[in-house]
Amino acid sequence: MKQSRGARTIVFPTPVFIVGTYDDAGKANMMAAAWGGICSSRPPSVAVSLRAATHSHGSIVARRAFTISIASESYVTEADYVGIASGRDVDKFAVTGLTPVHSDLVDAPYVSEYPMVLECRLSQTVETDLHTIFIGEILDVKAEDNVFDENGRIDIERVRPILWAPDGRGYYGVGEHLGEAFRIGRKLMDES
Amino acid sequence: MKQSRGARTIVFPTPVFIVGTYDDAGKANMMAAAWGGICSSRPPSVAVSLRAATHSHGSIVARRAFTISIASESYVTEADYVGIASGRDVDKFAVTGLTPVHSDLVDAPYVSEYPMVLECRLSQTVETDLHTIFIGEILDVKAEDNVFDENGRIDIERVRPILWAPDGRGYYGVGEHLGEAFRIGRKLMDES
Repeated sequence: MKQSRGARTIVFPTPVFIVGTYDDAGKANMMAAAWGGICSSRPPSVAVSLRAATHSHGSIVARRAFTISIASESYVTEADYVGIASGRDVDKFAVTGLTPVHSDLVDAPYVSEYPMVLECRLSQTVETDLHTIFIGEILDVKAEDNVFDENGRIDIERVRPILWAPDGRGYYGVGEHLGEAFRIGRKLMDES
Repeated sequence: MKQSRGARTIVFPTPVFIVGTYDDAGKANMMAAAWGGICSSRPPSVAVSLRAATHSHGSIVARRAFTISIASESYVTEADYVGIASGRDVDKFAVTGLTPVHSDLVDAPYVSEYPMVLECRLSQTVETDLHTIFIGEILDVKAEDNVFDENGRIDIERVRPILWAPDGRGYYGVGEHLGEAFRIGRKLMDES
């Protein structure tokens, strides 16, 4: 029997995107955002929603660029911190001891220590009452040598990203492998 | 050292949204979509991107409604199947043996056996070259009695959702709890 939980933003899993930008003063900044995901395969694009009140919001509008770094689970404290502190008040790279790297493709920094990054050029913005949806064209995905598998693909089990669960507010790691996409469902196709 | 993987739609994790719709003939249909996520807190909204070629795409445009059911990991075969078969050719509810329930809030069905569902009214559509981004206002989130925790919140560890990893194409479960959001990062705040 299903119970109502109301009109709320609860879905599982949500990602923990570490959004990298340069502010007006040219200072590298980063924030955590869980409202987002891939939104198009052509051009390859990712959406991330930020409130206008955030320091990062103005930076994306001004530079028309952002990065999304994926933190591995050993950086969960830093990932949480950059979601609660504001780049208006502090230098989050200095506080966390993380290193900003200037993207050579877009005017935004990414996190050197994190295993994976998407470099994005702002292509569209969509307004809702509270959030601006920033749609970025993914110009490149870069990842550390040691997170590629033997087929040259980026392996989630080596990246070890963080998931977020909105209603309970917990962070989680990635669990066991359940099956191969576009493959295990074929069982049902053959039967039908 | 980071290597380029190219302009690709790779990010971790992505969700496995089971999108429920009624087609022209009134037949309940569902498909799996990994391109999406929460996109606004006010109004509470979720985005999901579908190609115009999918059967579900026309259904959302016509009925201006959809649901997102979250499959638990024991249903990974069914979740994969509804991503590779088309509702034009088959009755996916019949093939999987799952039960469509008519939402009492929007003109779309959800999956009775899945632990959690978002009922959405289409509020905006955004076009990209290949995908339409459907933005739905979340009118309610419903979940099974047995996935609520003692505080009345929906517990990801009881829902046991499926994650998808694009580049390697694997499905995964949720792993260990890493920490509490808006809390563990305070350590760094106090220090700074």
